[in-house]
Amino acid sequence: MAKELKELTPREENYSQWYNDLVIKAGLAESSAVRGCMVIKPYGYAIWEKMQRALDDMFKATGHQNAYFPLFIPKSFFSKEAHHVEGFAKECAVVTHYRLKNDPEGKGVIVDPDAELEEELIVRPTSETIIWNTYKNWIQSYRDLPILCNQWANVVRWEMRTRLFLRTAEFLWQEGHTAHETREEALAEARKMIGVYANFAEKWMSLPVIIGHKSDSERFAGAEDTLTIEAMMQDGKALQSGTSHFLGQNFAKAFDVQFTNREGRLEYVWATSWGVSTRLMGALIMAHSDNNGLVLPPKLAPIQVVMIPIYKGEEELHRITERLDRIATELRARGLSVKIDDRDNVRTGFKFAEYELKGVPVRLAMGPRDVANGTIELVRRDTLHKEVVAQDGLVDRVVGLMDEIQQNIYDKALKFRDGMITRVDSYDEFKRVLDEKGGFILAHWDGTPETEARIKEETKATIRCIPVNAPEEAGVDMLSGKPSSRRVIFARAY
Amino acid sequence: MAKELKELTPREENYSQWYNDLVIKAGLAESSAVRGCMVIKPYGYAIWEKMQRALDDMFKATGHQNAYFPLFIPKSFFSKEAHHVEGFAKECAVVTHYRLKNDPEGKGVIVDPDAELEEELIVRPTSETIIWNTYKNWIQSYRDLPILCNQWANVVRWEMRTRLFLRTAEFLWQEGHTAHETREEALAEARKMIGVYANFAEKWMSLPVIIGHKSDSERFAGAEDTLTIEAMMQDGKALQSGTSHFLGQNFAKAFDVQFTNREGRLEYVWATSWGVSTRLMGALIMAHSDNNGLVLPPKLAPIQVVMIPIYKGEEELHRITERLDRIATELRARGLSVKIDDRDNVRTGFKFAEYELKGVPVRLAMGPRDVANGTIELVRRDTLHKEVVAQDGLVDRVVGLMDEIQQNIYDKALKFRDGMITRVDSYDEFKRVLDEKGGFILAHWDGTPETEARIKEETKATIRCIPVNAPEEAGVDMLSGKPSSRRVIFARAY
Repeated sequence: MAKELKELTPREENYSQWYNDLVIKAGLAESSAVRGCMVIKPYGYAIWEKMQRALDDMFKATGHQNAYFPLFIPKSFFSKEAHHVEGFAKECAVVTHYRLKNDPEGKGVIVDPDAELEEELIVRPTSETIIWNTYKNWIQSYRDLPILCNQWANVVRWEMRTRLFLRTAEFLWQEGHTAHETREEALAEARKMIGVYANFAEKWMSLPVIIGHKSDSERFAGAEDTLTIEAMMQDGKALQSGTSHFLGQNFAKAFDVQFTNREGRLEYVWATSWGVSTRLMGALIMAHSDNNGLVLPPKLAPIQVVMIPIYKGEEELHRITERLDRIATELRARGLSVKIDDRDNVRTGFKFAEYELKGVPVRLAMGPRDVANGTIELVRRDTLHKEVVAQDGLVDRVVGLMDEIQQNIYDKALKFRDGMITRVDSYDEFKRVLDEKGGFILAHWDGTPETEARIKEETKATIRCIPVNAPEEAGVDMLSGKPSSRRVIFARAY
Repeated sequence: MAKELKELTPREENYSQWYNDLVIKAGLAESSAVRGCMVIKPYGYAIWEKMQRALDDMFKATGHQNAYFPLFIPKSFFSKEAHHVEGFAKECAVVTHYRLKNDPEGKGVIVDPDAELEEELIVRPTSETIIWNTYKNWIQSYRDLPILCNQWANVVRWEMRTRLFLRTAEFLWQEGHTAHETREEALAEARKMIGVYANFAEKWMSLPVIIGHKSDSERFAGAEDTLTIEAMMQDGKALQSGTSHFLGQNFAKAFDVQFTNREGRLEYVWATSWGVSTRLMGALIMAHSDNNGLVLPPKLAPIQVVMIPIYKGEEELHRITERLDRIATELRARGLSVKIDDRDNVRTGFKFAEYELKGVPVRLAMGPRDVANGTIELVRRDTLHKEVVAQDGLVDRVVGLMDEIQQNIYDKALKFRDGMITRVDSYDEFKRVLDEKGGFILAHWDGTPETEARIKEETKATIRCIPVNAPEEAGVDMLSGKPSSRRVIFARAY
């Protein structure tokens, strides 16, 4: 039974299937009856809630407030910003009617043809348009600025090929939308928020990321600059994990949002927007997990410590759980989330496998001999290292392990990621590295969309970003031979 | 300016307009460009977040977990439960297409006729159908039960007449959906959750409520029993504030969800569902506020204490804010949320009016004389009582005031509510009380939908509930003269 539970397709054999098995078997999410839409199951949602809480605290600490804007956007709003409409108003869910009625032929309910909307409504794929239409009424003078709003919401993009968490028709996210007096202030906000995301990825998700600018063709539709954090998955593919956009005055112009500046002149408002989504769940799963299941950083683990009594009969169980209860109480008093699993209808081996699958950072098991000896068995999920330790000092040890595991998972991911960065100077080498090793490839690029497009077409690799800290370095483009002043990062990506 | 800010339509003059003015001017919400959909502004959303946090903690303390189910529901799902389809699948947002394209005539974007969905999708008005379709795969045996899930989500019901918070096309809510082995366990769950709602209303919102059963005709579409909490607004109208439904086996039968019970026999699963929504914001506002603005119970106030320096010139400001900062630090250390408003572009009177409008429970103001005397001016929002108190002992005083104000607002609402309950024994008296006084009317009812319908048609009053603690009392129906064994509660309602 333990075997069956854990039966994940091995990572080496089929990474994509391994991922899917893991999401399903660990109880994180599943497909629903609605094409492309997922059900986020309680265990998956508990991780997402922890992400939300941490991010929300960081947003508030940087002066942002939450608000809520409508799910629907009038179709005409999308036409107001030329690039935005190209990027977002195509594959989307369109509401055309507002009533059903009983089928006169008795076949359930049908759409009432008399209840057609005058203007179709689009289920929001992102909310710049409806929000800037709202901000118009909130902003008259520089005294009304900045506006620093965030919303937690669901959005819909009608994706044709979907994968749980990574690409779904409906997903959950947060979108920050800020309004500023000056270009400089908006640029600083966009930089600040990509920094918040990077900090969250590294400190909470144990996920090293590279911060950089998107190329023109990969930029958010309607932005003047898009900052991104790019992470490396274990199969050598990149995953864009969060973006922060400097929108210039594009949406202010599209929705005619002007303010009286400090000099008494009318000016268009400067904007940013930034978001992360349930896609982060995919990044978290793919970056750390193994063939035994999830590996969760302790800060995001719904259960941080699981305790399992190993016993025969009621009397032994009673004696062991009495001890476990006492330890659990102490651990909880130190802020840890602890579960005691004393189910009697499954074997110990099954339980061990289950909590490995679910990525619980620390497992403690106690048998009758441990009671006699004052010991307990401790297993770390990240290393699977097992040891028998004294019950004395256990609580301090486990509390300390949380930081240790958090750091170890990060270090391991960082080491892997750094090993997956390759500097390349010719197109042949580029293609060879891409096929044989994958990962991030640092190469020179002439800055033209033509070269970028040709590389993408021929290799499926895209420019993930132009790192913000890329050093100046004279070179020539691999393909065109034209001059380049710094290397950019290419990769195949999710 | 202070006058203009506060200019609410007096409550006595036009209650409905007073409410709308208040929601707008206090910055809680506003209408959006999408018919019937509101924008929840940061101050309003901050109150909702406090409600969410408190409720979510209560749900988790009673063993529930959060999850997330799709926004869209296939149209055919609604036809599976006969009553449910009548109640919910009529006025709703229908997604018929999944793509827009550029208008060949150059007029922006149009719906692509080639992208019609095979089956229309309904934007969820409530999620029983999609959730029970999912539960089918989660439940095989009694060991899989109970399932105790909740989701925080947006829902859409195409209401024709909308009012901010009280009735909007899109609103935010939580919906609990539980699955049980036995009828008794499901009944107990439905009772437990209406108890959680009542506790939340009374302890957090300072809102006394009456718990009772809905009559057959007011019951949730698809339920066997609906429990409700009913609150009394200041205009004598009732507001249904939360409901908890015993769904019997209706949805299990509609979606064929059976389990192997402890005796090894297949049986349909028993269900409950329960929800509260942003409508609670409307209840909170209407129950306590006055002509000066909001009156917020401290537990739900985003700002609990506001501090205002009264000064001339930089030097005075500096001296005063130094003191205020010190007090603020102490108050924050005691867990209070404190704001110091030292804006120099608005007058003190304007600030006073603004925080009254926003319902901040305690206002502290300090001038140069207070600095000299070691005093501070303290004003309670609930009573508007003003006094000058010593700075010594202030922090304890203010911390204590939070509980005192919380309780006082509740006591006031309870006294008002109790004064609005009238026992009535004839239909003439019923109509007179309804028109002259309003409120809850305790009257005998013969239990038939015919009588209920006639009363509703003639008076616009509905049966709010059959209180769970209604004493047995022999009587006769006001209209039909038929026997009745207990009084029920009638009222006009929101």
